[in-house]
Amino acid sequence: MFDPVETLKEFVRFPSVSTDSTQREGMKGARDYIGGLLKSVGFSVEEVPTPLHPILIGRRGGDPTWPHVVIYGHYDVQPPDPLELWTTPPFEPEERNGRLYGRGAADNKGPLVTHVSAVAQLLEENSNLPLRITFLIEGEEEIGSPSFGRFLEEHKDIFNADFVFLSDTGSPNASQIVVTTGLRGISCLEVEATGPKQDLHSGVHGGAVLNPIQALTEICASLHDGDGRVNVPAFYDDVRPVQDWERDELAKLGVSEEEYARFLGVPGFHTEKGYSPFEGVRFRPTLEFNGIGGGYQGEGSKTVIPSKAFAKISCRLVADQDPVRIQKAVVEAIKERCPATISLRFSFAHNGAPYLVTPPGKPNTPKDQPEALAIAFREADAAIADVFGKPPCYLREGGSVPIIGDIKRITGLDSLMIGLFLPEDNLHAPDESFHLGVMKNGIAVSKRILSRLASVKQSAGS
Amino acid sequence: MFDPVETLKEFVRFPSVSTDSTQREGMKGARDYIGGLLKSVGFSVEEVPTPLHPILIGRRGGDPTWPHVVIYGHYDVQPPDPLELWTTPPFEPEERNGRLYGRGAADNKGPLVTHVSAVAQLLEENSNLPLRITFLIEGEEEIGSPSFGRFLEEHKDIFNADFVFLSDTGSPNASQIVVTTGLRGISCLEVEATGPKQDLHSGVHGGAVLNPIQALTEICASLHDGDGRVNVPAFYDDVRPVQDWERDELAKLGVSEEEYARFLGVPGFHTEKGYSPFEGVRFRPTLEFNGIGGGYQGEGSKTVIPSKAFAKISCRLVADQDPVRIQKAVVEAIKERCPATISLRFSFAHNGAPYLVTPPGKPNTPKDQPEALAIAFREADAAIADVFGKPPCYLREGGSVPIIGDIKRITGLDSLMIGLFLPEDNLHAPDESFHLGVMKNGIAVSKRILSRLASVKQSAGS
Repeated sequence: MFDPVETLKEFVRFPSVSTDSTQREGMKGARDYIGGLLKSVGFSVEEVPTPLHPILIGRRGGDPTWPHVVIYGHYDVQPPDPLELWTTPPFEPEERNGRLYGRGAADNKGPLVTHVSAVAQLLEENSNLPLRITFLIEGEEEIGSPSFGRFLEEHKDIFNADFVFLSDTGSPNASQIVVTTGLRGISCLEVEATGPKQDLHSGVHGGAVLNPIQALTEICASLHDGDGRVNVPAFYDDVRPVQDWERDELAKLGVSEEEYARFLGVPGFHTEKGYSPFEGVRFRPTLEFNGIGGGYQGEGSKTVIPSKAFAKISCRLVADQDPVRIQKAVVEAIKERCPATISLRFSFAHNGAPYLVTPPGKPNTPKDQPEALAIAFREADAAIADVFGKPPCYLREGGSVPIIGDIKRITGLDSLMIGLFLPEDNLHAPDESFHLGVMKNGIAVSKRILSRLASVKQSAGS
Repeated sequence: MFDPVETLKEFVRFPSVSTDSTQREGMKGARDYIGGLLKSVGFSVEEVPTPLHPILIGRRGGDPTWPHVVIYGHYDVQPPDPLELWTTPPFEPEERNGRLYGRGAADNKGPLVTHVSAVAQLLEENSNLPLRITFLIEGEEEIGSPSFGRFLEEHKDIFNADFVFLSDTGSPNASQIVVTTGLRGISCLEVEATGPKQDLHSGVHGGAVLNPIQALTEICASLHDGDGRVNVPAFYDDVRPVQDWERDELAKLGVSEEEYARFLGVPGFHTEKGYSPFEGVRFRPTLEFNGIGGGYQGEGSKTVIPSKAFAKISCRLVADQDPVRIQKAVVEAIKERCPATISLRFSFAHNGAPYLVTPPGKPNTPKDQPEALAIAFREADAAIADVFGKPPCYLREGGSVPIIGDIKRITGLDSLMIGLFLPEDNLHAPDESFHLGVMKNGIAVSKRILSRLASVKQSAGS
């Protein structure tokens, strides 16, 4: 039986940076390592090629009446830059103060090893465990899962299952675990505004033509109203109302606004009218400017009227907003507000659907919620209470894991998401680490959920 | 007697790029060359050190009852980049189609050699010419004349003169010469808006905090109103009204709006309400965004709420706006409109006063206009009509030559500016050139003005 922490250390050693084409070896190393681990536990492993980084499928079949769970994870990690800010090298994992430091230790290698360890221990205890398990481990999560949509369309059979189980979301601290009930969707676009065909001297020609930076800032400024709402027609039309029980859960979070402001380094918040900062992040859609540029960027001054300026915009979406519809609405609003002497060019980056699931026993729980999912949710609640010492909060998360919404949309499967990241994990930042106490408890919780599931007689997916 | 065209060729060979610290030799070469030329004509030459590039003073003294004219020029040039767009190398001057090509051929070496040649020919014809002449030739014009203010304070005696004479402005074509009656001033600043102390994940925290790009675009958008006016309190308070005769002169320009739009490469104009594009450029102050930046600038998307965003702003000013007062007004307006959760940092680049002079014989000509200046204006009018075949237009220019406003403010001296640049000269661009027909005619006009001046019995500056 392998040791989870030593296994995670080995796994972190592979520099599996999906966005870095010089790290193909690191990607292959991590893929082979996690595939080998699954094989050692008795899984058959398939490597599905994609245009970039293959997806691993690990299968444990069995009697078709057994429940079937798909466990999701990813073997790729963020780039480690800036290297000089790491206390120890990002791909030389080191244990300090009950944490394992290294790029990807938390996102997502630690949580993935947590679930693989749980499965391994369960199967060691009972090699005839009546549970079908499919591991789905991708290598392009950190670059927006560009190959996943096609994979999903071509491998629907994998999702002939009861639900998806994963840990790729966060909790506020090591004793208050969150069961994530929602993820925001995303819709990205870039708009480039062109005025004169070339940069002009702002003295010789200023006063005759519209500066594209001026036009762009006026357009951007029009996209929010004075109440902090997104000022795009129909933007909120499909937003599903927040339930009272969700607000009650959020109240349990145990972080004060003062603490949150200090954590962010802001003197105060700016939210949509009627919503707290926590509600703004977890319940409401946004339109953000991720970048803006145009004209002279260097030191001092250069008195030019630039030819072009651009803005990068992304919307975070909530159920049931449709990313494509929102993208179109934003583009239309921008076009309508664009002065006649400015021409626009749009380019589009990734889109992802929002996701929302309701745990059993809530006023709005669907009457036809699959039994296995309800059982897993209930066991998660009890196991987290027992193991971590406190029942979980049921919260939506502000971030996006677009494939979860895609899986729901295309296969109908819901997801049980247990948040194992803590704020101190420094995801995507230097000195990323994973809390080993959370890992140990996470293994225990995962075992209990899977074990309880194995006792369900008839699979919904059979 | 030197040949003006051959002299200009020699002068252009020196790569006197004032902003490029590797071109100190080129600067020294150009300075020594033009200084040597003045010496050869009988001037005493003084090199006044500055923190960067020395200023040359060339003096021809004489009887204190003789009129005294200060001729201004600059020996520094713009950088020649992008080099690959030049037909022949920028510092290997070549004559083609009646033009001399090379960096600085027009701005300002050609016009400067024009006036030096005129003086040389006059003195050859009459070595006892009753005229005091001071050449003032700086080497930092292309970097905003940072040393000129202090020089002016410390050398006020030089400006114990009748007026300043220069050619550093433009005309629409080789037969329609402009006598430039006004220059816009300038006031530059940069504002940096800071929100969170570091970039934030737009999913995890979006909806809680104000994005500094959003705040900045809202501030920038507030700086103009729907009529194209600058929306800053008191901005227009000190603007001196345009005279009817100025509008009449502008009507003579002979360029249609269609031609101008084609030249700029814009589908249409955007002007302050009630003003044509020509009026907007020559008569009205502006507030332009010369650059904007913040957040992610690379390809594709990065879903970040940036910590900072900046905008570079410059105002072009008209008489009698005060650059410092305007800068303060803009800063105050920005501060007032800045949301509480955003902090601002301002930095300031160069300022320059606007300049306006009224030729003799206009309804608003000052009654106390110095006689020598009025005579020079009248002789310029007659000489341009004779030599170029058409009387000049009297027009303000949209660009800035800040030292002219400073000289007026500090010493009280007005300037006679004859525009020798043509639109085809490609100032500050590849394939800069100077029209040799304009140069030849310019020498003749300059000679007539100086010669007529020498006939004025009593100097105002004596």
